[in-house]
Amino acid sequence: MYYETLCQMKKMLGQLDKWLEAATAYAQSKSFDPNVFVGLRLAPDQFAFARQVQSACDTAKLAAARLAGKDAPTHPDTEQTLEELRARVRTVVAYLEGFSAKDFNAAATRVITQPRWEGKVMSGADYFLEHAVPNFFFHITHAYAILRHNGVNIGKRDYLGPLTLRAP
Amino acid sequence: MYYETLCQMKKMLGQLDKWLEAATAYAQSKSFDPNVFVGLRLAPDQFAFARQVQSACDTAKLAAARLAGKDAPTHPDTEQTLEELRARVRTVVAYLEGFSAKDFNAAATRVITQPRWEGKVMSGADYFLEHAVPNFFFHITHAYAILRHNGVNIGKRDYLGPLTLRAP
Repeated sequence: MYYETLCQMKKMLGQLDKWLEAATAYAQSKSFDPNVFVGLRLAPDQFAFARQVQSACDTAKLAAARLAGKDAPTHPDTEQTLEELRARVRTVVAYLEGFSAKDFNAAATRVITQPRWEGKVMSGADYFLEHAVPNFFFHITHAYAILRHNGVNIGKRDYLGPLTLRAP
Repeated sequence: MYYETLCQMKKMLGQLDKWLEAATAYAQSKSFDPNVFVGLRLAPDQFAFARQVQSACDTAKLAAARLAGKDAPTHPDTEQTLEELRARVRTVVAYLEGFSAKDFNAAATRVITQPRWEGKVMSGADYFLEHAVPNFFFHITHAYAILRHNGVNIGKRDYLGPLTLRAP
């Protein structure tokens, strides 16, 4: 289910791109600079909007790379505008497009580590469930919430995107 | 991975219980009624805090029940205090404790529907990935964000809970 869940993350990053478009349109309709959104945050000691978007992107990118045993491309977090954030999102969506189900055949048993774990490691299975998936949704939902809190006209359908509904 | 993901939801509901405890302590430290939190929201047309908690609970409960082919217990959304919300969370955690991995052997191919889909259905696999998981994280993250926005002293470690880190 690693591949399927990463495809869902890719789908949601596509939705995030649409929220960014809606934020731009909202700013234009109210005659303010759309890039004001870049620095907005819900609490003074939480990440601002840009960092929430960057973190959602990085969480998906790094999960795919680590679980497939590949080196992820680095992105230096220099985005200052909504257009630059949209480009970042699209870059990560394109990166995720490059994976297929078989890339994750050994995902569950890979050994994952990162600097802040001070030498400790997680199995790929634990890392994905306990760290990557909750962090991805944390940051993408905070990005959504910052826009909603500031008046952008998006709703739950824009969050979920189209569902695979079919006739019974 | 249905069972494992539902166990992760159960873990996060346990974390939510701790955020509710932290919200109560914060209110007491500032001498205001903790139950003020129940009605707070990030936007006037978003769910208030209580409804975010109830929705996170229901999303996990209904996902487990539907994917296991069981009838879920109903909870009437009457909570008016943080203590009642904590009891609701603990009820759902206990309900999720009653499932085991084999309950989800047929989950992927179950036919799932709900009234708002107007007669359409989803496979269990699609429902879980596209609807249940994103909705669960949407509501639990909004509950977290409402508390953070209003000063409660919780952070990313309280969101994630303890990780299964081990020696390399």
